[in-house]
Amino acid sequence: MSVEEQFAKLCLESAAAEGATPVKSLVFKPKTAKSATPVPIVVVALQTTATPSPLIAQATKTKDPRLARDDLFKSAFNCETAKSFTVAYLNGVAASSFQLLIDSQLESVADDAVLQLNETLCIKKGELTKFLAQFEPVTADFTQEVKKPEQQQKKKPAQQQTNNASLEDAKLIGITVDKTKDFPGWYQQVLTKGEMLDYYDVSGCYILRPPSYAIWENIQRWFDDKIKGLGVQNAYFPMFVSSRVLEKEKDHVEGFAPEVAWVTRAGSSELEEPIAIRPTSETVMYPYYAKWIQSYRDLPLKLNQWNSVVRWEFKHPQPFLRTREFLWQEGHTVFLTKEEAEEEVLQILDFYSGVYEELLAVPVIKGRKTEKEKFAGGDFTTTCEGYIPQTGRGIQGATSHHLGQNFSKMFNLTVENPQGPQYPKVFAWQNSWGLSTRVIGVMVMIHSDNKGLVIPPRVSQTQAVVIPVGITKKTSDEQRKIIHESARDIESRLKKIGVRAFGDYNDNYTPGWKFSQYELKGVPIRLELGPRDIEQNHVTVVRRSDSQKYNVKLDELETRIPEILEEMQKDLFEKAKEKFDTHRVIVNEWKDFVPNLNKKNILLSPWCGVMECEEDIKESSAKKDDGEELEVDEKSPSMGAKSLCIPFAQPELKKDQKCIKCDRPAIQYCMFGRSY
Amino acid sequence: MSVEEQFAKLCLESAAAEGATPVKSLVFKPKTAKSATPVPIVVVALQTTATPSPLIAQATKTKDPRLARDDLFKSAFNCETAKSFTVAYLNGVAASSFQLLIDSQLESVADDAVLQLNETLCIKKGELTKFLAQFEPVTADFTQEVKKPEQQQKKKPAQQQTNNASLEDAKLIGITVDKTKDFPGWYQQVLTKGEMLDYYDVSGCYILRPPSYAIWENIQRWFDDKIKGLGVQNAYFPMFVSSRVLEKEKDHVEGFAPEVAWVTRAGSSELEEPIAIRPTSETVMYPYYAKWIQSYRDLPLKLNQWNSVVRWEFKHPQPFLRTREFLWQEGHTVFLTKEEAEEEVLQILDFYSGVYEELLAVPVIKGRKTEKEKFAGGDFTTTCEGYIPQTGRGIQGATSHHLGQNFSKMFNLTVENPQGPQYPKVFAWQNSWGLSTRVIGVMVMIHSDNKGLVIPPRVSQTQAVVIPVGITKKTSDEQRKIIHESARDIESRLKKIGVRAFGDYNDNYTPGWKFSQYELKGVPIRLELGPRDIEQNHVTVVRRSDSQKYNVKLDELETRIPEILEEMQKDLFEKAKEKFDTHRVIVNEWKDFVPNLNKKNILLSPWCGVMECEEDIKESSAKKDDGEELEVDEKSPSMGAKSLCIPFAQPELKKDQKCIKCDRPAIQYCMFGRSY
Repeated sequence: MSVEEQFAKLCLESAAAEGATPVKSLVFKPKTAKSATPVPIVVVALQTTATPSPLIAQATKTKDPRLARDDLFKSAFNCETAKSFTVAYLNGVAASSFQLLIDSQLESVADDAVLQLNETLCIKKGELTKFLAQFEPVTADFTQEVKKPEQQQKKKPAQQQTNNASLEDAKLIGITVDKTKDFPGWYQQVLTKGEMLDYYDVSGCYILRPPSYAIWENIQRWFDDKIKGLGVQNAYFPMFVSSRVLEKEKDHVEGFAPEVAWVTRAGSSELEEPIAIRPTSETVMYPYYAKWIQSYRDLPLKLNQWNSVVRWEFKHPQPFLRTREFLWQEGHTVFLTKEEAEEEVLQILDFYSGVYEELLAVPVIKGRKTEKEKFAGGDFTTTCEGYIPQTGRGIQGATSHHLGQNFSKMFNLTVENPQGPQYPKVFAWQNSWGLSTRVIGVMVMIHSDNKGLVIPPRVSQTQAVVIPVGITKKTSDEQRKIIHESARDIESRLKKIGVRAFGDYNDNYTPGWKFSQYELKGVPIRLELGPRDIEQNHVTVVRRSDSQKYNVKLDELETRIPEILEEMQKDLFEKAKEKFDTHRVIVNEWKDFVPNLNKKNILLSPWCGVMECEEDIKESSAKKDDGEELEVDEKSPSMGAKSLCIPFAQPELKKDQKCIKCDRPAIQYCMFGRSY
Repeated sequence: MSVEEQFAKLCLESAAAEGATPVKSLVFKPKTAKSATPVPIVVVALQTTATPSPLIAQATKTKDPRLARDDLFKSAFNCETAKSFTVAYLNGVAASSFQLLIDSQLESVADDAVLQLNETLCIKKGELTKFLAQFEPVTADFTQEVKKPEQQQKKKPAQQQTNNASLEDAKLIGITVDKTKDFPGWYQQVLTKGEMLDYYDVSGCYILRPPSYAIWENIQRWFDDKIKGLGVQNAYFPMFVSSRVLEKEKDHVEGFAPEVAWVTRAGSSELEEPIAIRPTSETVMYPYYAKWIQSYRDLPLKLNQWNSVVRWEFKHPQPFLRTREFLWQEGHTVFLTKEEAEEEVLQILDFYSGVYEELLAVPVIKGRKTEKEKFAGGDFTTTCEGYIPQTGRGIQGATSHHLGQNFSKMFNLTVENPQGPQYPKVFAWQNSWGLSTRVIGVMVMIHSDNKGLVIPPRVSQTQAVVIPVGITKKTSDEQRKIIHESARDIESRLKKIGVRAFGDYNDNYTPGWKFSQYELKGVPIRLELGPRDIEQNHVTVVRRSDSQKYNVKLDELETRIPEILEEMQKDLFEKAKEKFDTHRVIVNEWKDFVPNLNKKNILLSPWCGVMECEEDIKESSAKKDDGEELEVDEKSPSMGAKSLCIPFAQPELKKDQKCIKCDRPAIQYCMFGRSY
């Protein structure tokens, strides 16, 4: 008798399935030392319950559980594939050989309600509970906010007991993990508690809440003005692309094919041909460019679109940095000459670096990608690269590609020769360039702290919050009225000069509670107005970034507040720049390479320019023997150093300088680092 | 031997398939009289060639060919399904029983190239040509622009010979069909030749080119400011939604289920569960609203997003009006009280009517949808309804829905009772409201003419074009220079005061050619500057809408040009309003209903409010016996009258007035019409 048949004795007829509540059975594998046998975690939950890995980790006191692969299903439960697994396979398995976690929301279902385990298996909830009881289940509350408890840290043998990531005096409402000790946990909290973003029930997709979308709108406005100044026009192309068209440029599509999401069904009809969702729009747009461009007088053609694209990555998703759908702009321009195109590539790169440095206060290094790292199908890629101090890793900021004539040859994007029709037709020169919501993630990682978000004033949805203070039981009604009216007056004066101000006059919360709230949300400055301030005819201003206090005279409000905001903007940039500068070191000899990498540095090293050597550098700089599994993923510090870019600003190369890794002569300095 | 086996004799081994050029075989059914047997059209084309129905109609001299259904495959070619059809099935079929159309691009393929007909069938191109030759094929050029030739009109027996839609003096570059005689053909041309939009190779999807996207941007800016003034914030939710969540609100999903596009595959992996692309975001957003709203102090919550949604309609697509992907905004707001929610529903409807009337110069009627036509799952729907004079049909402009507590009950969107925790929790009151790029289609249909687009100044990407004129061979270099410099000066003066001006100084085209060009593109005014204008110190201004001419003194440029633009805006609205007003008639007796409908009117009729009666009115007003098939589609004038709305501005109801259709007493006037 098969396990399913055995289990079926407990089960109802499948006819009872209508109206049944769907339940999922998932198996996770926690991270364990290489030598150990992993103890799988079985999660039984309502289909509608999201079961984020951190909450599973917390409930089972394990580390970094991931969805198990087929081999574990086979070895632990004698089940061939993840897909066919249900709790039926637990029948006869020793309780000690796995951990069982039950969704607390499932417990609230009535005992005689019918649950649906897969297409054919149904069971009454009471029966299921009885069946599962033998395996000593633990109940998990998946409705709570994800947090990183201390237990998790304690299990890490390499870390000392004192290296506890939880913040001593953090209240539940604030950030409870330390940025310096548990960076990923901190990042998740600062985003969700700061209300920038929320996790979504489709893995790898996130909700951009108003404060983050407002940052994106501010970036859009700035960048859109810049490109319109260059004569770029906005347009909108469809999100769908037929497989034939998508696959036209082979080099190009190879880079994206594994991540393309396919629509195969509409309503209840199978589509005749599956249709892809654009991962980027080169192949969507260029067939039409070829149609529209008939004469060299139609050039240059410069279009941009603000849209979302989908790349169904299977690597660990991270809010803003690696998401399956993301917002971006993609510009696609066509020129008659290589020179015009090359000029534009760099103009756009300057705008990108402007978004980082001028708006987000994030320093970046401009340069060119190596052949290995460039955009597939293009001639060369320029990039601006950032640096995350906590992890010591580089991060690609935004890229501007010169496509040469590669795409124009594939898509037959030609114009008559300006010298006359008797000369051969000319293939056009193209660029494409994109900047995505990833910028917001970089900004958060760099400026924010253990009190919450720190948002640079130029992009913050709210720039200043006005809070009445010093109101006690003894305060007279009249005085209370004066304070509130003065505060409202300040708010409206600030709004009048274009400061994005907001007043919180709610009496139900204490000023202290409000301070924490707006610190958590990263509002750049707070204006406190109390009886003493009014007496002295000033307002107390506190900067979010460093708690610096100012007394601003009320009649100087209109000049001082914008100044303070600009000073904070500048200071944020300077502080981040200093960190990047001190962690960007020139390393000329291989023996210093890995040690410097391990000091969380980005390295500038002389390099031969050969792709195999680049691969060798990555390979040789990866840590391999740290008692962990060799799983070079995003969370692991063991990854090797990638080339980040060949910076435009080059240190002087010594005569006869050899490559950092091989015996070939160096031709330039290249920037290497572990990276996102 | 099966047809495939017979045909296989001609074919290569399937091993040769690698690198083969894919070819598609499609079957179309032209529109014919009910009694006639349709003669199918077989189209053999490169997989990559788009084969729009109008071009097929033109090449085969048939009317309105559509993809055939399975029954025709069976009856004509003894082939079970459309999917399994290849040209192999033509083997043995009489040449006279179908028409064969071959893609001209296929003819340019070398004779020894290998073509792939389906997964297993490959054939050398030369063999295929020989095989197809027996069926007297016609070659079609699918690379040309779609146009409506006169032949097509001639076949229509009901129309007279003089009723020829082609425009006498239209050059190829301009519009070649008459708006009053072939409205759909005109609409298609005015959009594509005016460069608003292009057809895309995924059916039902269109490219918004810069002039139409700029209109959308102008609408966005206006509307976004308005809603931000109400405290609405923008956000972005994922485009994907899991099936469990999508199906949570049953009434709601029923309306959308047949049109939902499903992603089932990513790269080469099948997804464990198919994921839907949002057709609208109620079910995407509200689970998170329920999580975020903890207290009545979190209310109101007002979010909006600017995004694209997908509704995979199987009806005939139409640019802007019915497209499978479209851009829109969707607002989703939550209130503590019904009153607040109901107030907002109407505020938003006023903004929507503002978009139409103030920006697009399109008059609309505000009202409430009937129970039959309201948004599924909501309490009531308010709408603004437009009118297309050429077809005499109403068109839904934009809708603002009050959802009541229906969704808050489904998604458990509750807050503690403001009276205290001892009172029961309160379900929130919700609205949702959306306005899409459809507005652009309505605008084009209403104002544009046989010379091309007419775009209202307030939303036009370019508002004024400056064109030097009167330059002949006799013109001296100096005078030419003066004219050009003065023109550039005018352009820059206009730009300085915020007029979106553009100068065309290209010497390769005559002024006349340029005039036609910018008339085709709908630029609101053109400024002609020639020697005589300069002498008289003025510029000649011509309004696109009615060719009215003005002489504007150069020193009055900054005041007069904005005035002329505003006058044109106003006149466009007045003209459209007069047409709507004269075609909106009160009809109190059923005998006048259909005759008035057939006069291209929208009808205001007394109505009982009963859904069955509404259905009866629709049924009874449909023409059924006009010698055509009974196919109530979008192109057919035979459709019955739908209720468009119950206008807020009600004619006075006579005492004891009966319903227009039944014996029940009328409770209100309802607006009925054929509609889009």
